[in-house]
Amino acid sequence: MRKLNIPIIMQSNTANPAFPQLGDMPVSEFRRHAHQFVDWVADYFEQIEQHPVLPNLNPGDVRAQLPTAPPLAGEPMENLLADVDRVIMPGMTHWNHPNFFAYFAISGSGPGLLGELLSDAFNINGMLWKTCPAATELEQVTLDWLRQMLGLPQDFWGIIYDTASISTLHAIAAAREQLADLRIRAEGLAGRADVPRLRLYTSEHAHSSIDKAAITLGLGMAGVRKIPADENFRVRPEALAAAIAEDRRHGWRPFCVVANVGTTSTTSIDPVPALADICERENLWLHVDAAYGGAAAVVPEMRHVLDGCNRADSIVMNPHKWLFVPFDFSAFYTRKPEVLRRAFSLVPEYLRTAPDQHVENLMDYGVQLGRRFRALKLWFVIRYFGWDGIAARIREHIRLAQQFAGWVEAHPDFECMAPTPFSLVCFRAHPPNWDDTEKLNRLNEKLLEAVNATREVFLSHTKLQDRYVLRLAIGNLRTEEHHVRRAWELIKTQLMEIRTA
Amino acid sequence: MRKLNIPIIMQSNTANPAFPQLGDMPVSEFRRHAHQFVDWVADYFEQIEQHPVLPNLNPGDVRAQLPTAPPLAGEPMENLLADVDRVIMPGMTHWNHPNFFAYFAISGSGPGLLGELLSDAFNINGMLWKTCPAATELEQVTLDWLRQMLGLPQDFWGIIYDTASISTLHAIAAAREQLADLRIRAEGLAGRADVPRLRLYTSEHAHSSIDKAAITLGLGMAGVRKIPADENFRVRPEALAAAIAEDRRHGWRPFCVVANVGTTSTTSIDPVPALADICERENLWLHVDAAYGGAAAVVPEMRHVLDGCNRADSIVMNPHKWLFVPFDFSAFYTRKPEVLRRAFSLVPEYLRTAPDQHVENLMDYGVQLGRRFRALKLWFVIRYFGWDGIAARIREHIRLAQQFAGWVEAHPDFECMAPTPFSLVCFRAHPPNWDDTEKLNRLNEKLLEAVNATREVFLSHTKLQDRYVLRLAIGNLRTEEHHVRRAWELIKTQLMEIRTA
Repeated sequence: MRKLNIPIIMQSNTANPAFPQLGDMPVSEFRRHAHQFVDWVADYFEQIEQHPVLPNLNPGDVRAQLPTAPPLAGEPMENLLADVDRVIMPGMTHWNHPNFFAYFAISGSGPGLLGELLSDAFNINGMLWKTCPAATELEQVTLDWLRQMLGLPQDFWGIIYDTASISTLHAIAAAREQLADLRIRAEGLAGRADVPRLRLYTSEHAHSSIDKAAITLGLGMAGVRKIPADENFRVRPEALAAAIAEDRRHGWRPFCVVANVGTTSTTSIDPVPALADICERENLWLHVDAAYGGAAAVVPEMRHVLDGCNRADSIVMNPHKWLFVPFDFSAFYTRKPEVLRRAFSLVPEYLRTAPDQHVENLMDYGVQLGRRFRALKLWFVIRYFGWDGIAARIREHIRLAQQFAGWVEAHPDFECMAPTPFSLVCFRAHPPNWDDTEKLNRLNEKLLEAVNATREVFLSHTKLQDRYVLRLAIGNLRTEEHHVRRAWELIKTQLMEIRTA
Repeated sequence: MRKLNIPIIMQSNTANPAFPQLGDMPVSEFRRHAHQFVDWVADYFEQIEQHPVLPNLNPGDVRAQLPTAPPLAGEPMENLLADVDRVIMPGMTHWNHPNFFAYFAISGSGPGLLGELLSDAFNINGMLWKTCPAATELEQVTLDWLRQMLGLPQDFWGIIYDTASISTLHAIAAAREQLADLRIRAEGLAGRADVPRLRLYTSEHAHSSIDKAAITLGLGMAGVRKIPADENFRVRPEALAAAIAEDRRHGWRPFCVVANVGTTSTTSIDPVPALADICERENLWLHVDAAYGGAAAVVPEMRHVLDGCNRADSIVMNPHKWLFVPFDFSAFYTRKPEVLRRAFSLVPEYLRTAPDQHVENLMDYGVQLGRRFRALKLWFVIRYFGWDGIAARIREHIRLAQQFAGWVEAHPDFECMAPTPFSLVCFRAHPPNWDDTEKLNRLNEKLLEAVNATREVFLSHTKLQDRYVLRLAIGNLRTEEHHVRRAWELIKTQLMEIRTA
């Protein structure tokens, strides 16, 4: 028998006297605190409008209120909830606030939160079917429900990742793996005379996650060619075709196109059918980034936003953005799961199980081995609201945005800066006879600062053709018409104050 | 003014009649259900031992009980909780069960779960300081607390990722970025005559996530050279030095070494000081995978497990493994955050904010843009248990494992197959005079199947030098001495039954 090196361990008698027992928090204590906590959360939801949406503090203010060293002894839970009120709350940007109109407004709905609570309590790792059969199978079922709600064909296979950044990374990794002759999984890309430069194509308005994925995958920023868009911020298919042809002439190997359904700046929709034509002709992987916009396809009369996506190789859509599921939850679909699996499956002995041949082990389809039980919260959201109920809410958000866009268009001092196909309005102040772009930019930057400085609403911005543009995004379930109306009043008032200052 | 394409939106009058209002679940209803749910969770914890740790079902059994299409109309929340009992619970592998001894046993402790509940309720995205100052600053503070608890020097800067797979991916990406002359971020790796083959080195016992990171980053499986280990499964520094020298002679460019503190199969500890010597001499990035083992360093008399790690460039340690924080939570530290930032920072206009020059925007340090408020649960765990309380619990787990290893060693029909430096015991049945490896392998495979088939305990396995080995991992806060004793009785009984069958 093998000789052991057993470390000398002190007796377990030095535990904090306040908590003499070992083990977890006693269940009776957990129950008591958990009831306090859910009341705290319900109160927070009830009183959300009494908080400013943006905090009023300087960098370092939260940190300055916390000890620089960890406590040696344990503390009662009451201290923690008190410190949440004292230290954390004044440093919160309230994404739950109905006046949160920045970036893409989101909602971790009540049913979603209850699903997440169970998922956290189970604390499973769904890496293998065997490590939690219910997690793997509920993921398969709910992602197939969502596929039907989005109107995607049956051959789209789905998996849950954490973020669209990771979904898109996997999409491009699969596209790279599809270049089977290059044996990239086995041999890599570095120092190989037999591998050409690789190129993927996307709109100049595509999300930064596409560049990050290219950097990560060893394709580099140069591996992404940005294609110009038209006056409505949609990528130009003829420019794409020309870029591919030019690259082929110069020895690049094109391998992937990322189309956008709802770009981040303006929610513009690329002409996916035309891009699919090109990808089929050129034998390129077509990935669709519908992280935000895809949710609208749940609304029957909006299903057209995914036109052509049935011909994509993969698509990402984030239920944590506009489908009322708490963050994080990214739904990824592909018609070629076997390529994704070929890229990432790697099973060491310690993860082999008897049913491996008969089940889907979801760890085989990605970078991350650990997998939370995320399907529960989507299951709860779909069942509680129902498909119709979800559609009604998304429809209402679109209606509110259209209404806001109408107010902007009707006002002589404002203008819309992009179409509003979803629930985001891009606009700016543009008083009559102001023609200098820089002057207008300074005005609008000031306007955004002034509006956000009220801490009553939170809007964000972008730049379109060097023009500073304000973004008002509607996606929070608590946002009602009067909130949008109030935001509009505030914007108009702040503009007047700036102009008369 | 720009002409708009406003889509025609139907009136919002088609919502499910059961839920005529739009918006979220009403707060009063949320409050009521949330109280039901936390009682359900507390009951579940109280009754955890009445459930078998492993479910009794066949692939597809959960799926078969669920509708194949999503519901059109919403349903009352009561239906969902009933279906959790009816459909989900019979398909659960209970990671909360004190008899869960497989892989690495984990605990999402009570205080951790309460912290996660608040984090889910806030539903923020901590991508920028401005999008939630409290999240960024609490992350900075709690990771510095954890750094002190691990005994790492002050120049280790920390960030939270989801999993060790992602932490290690970022470590190797930073190591790659450090090869500044190669301009990999800008130019990528493909089709470049000026980039040599790149190599990273790790133990033959390293985790599969290192291979996955290499595949993802475009280094390929060939970009990872596995270094042989000694009889105690620790990588051999002289073999590493020889491999590097050989590779340099053959035109490879070595750039990174991944050391292990607690390998997955046996929790062996690589000789980090000797590896640090080599890395300093050879100018290689040293990353330490202490995802599981690092937690032990919180125990003062176990701090030596991280000897030499102060000289590493980066280290990953997962509080969701053995620090009682609910999944997911991976703590990553590096002495060169500027290299990580150089690899990944990419700020589009729509993410610029006024305080950018004065704050740390954590999105700049990784692939994922979206970031959950994970620091809350670590803060709760450290404060509720205290450093001493956490250490006492880890110490107790190590004591239980040493005791089990002692029973194994003392029994004529069993043997330990590796040292037990932490709380994992590698062992097998080895009756006297059984010498055939294959016969022993079949016996132990049968033994594992028989033990797990009782569904009373869950153990996993590995292979060491072609020998089939059982793994008993202790890491659950509910696991007490009598559970380990019962597991040992069960293992002995099952062996007897197999041998007399």
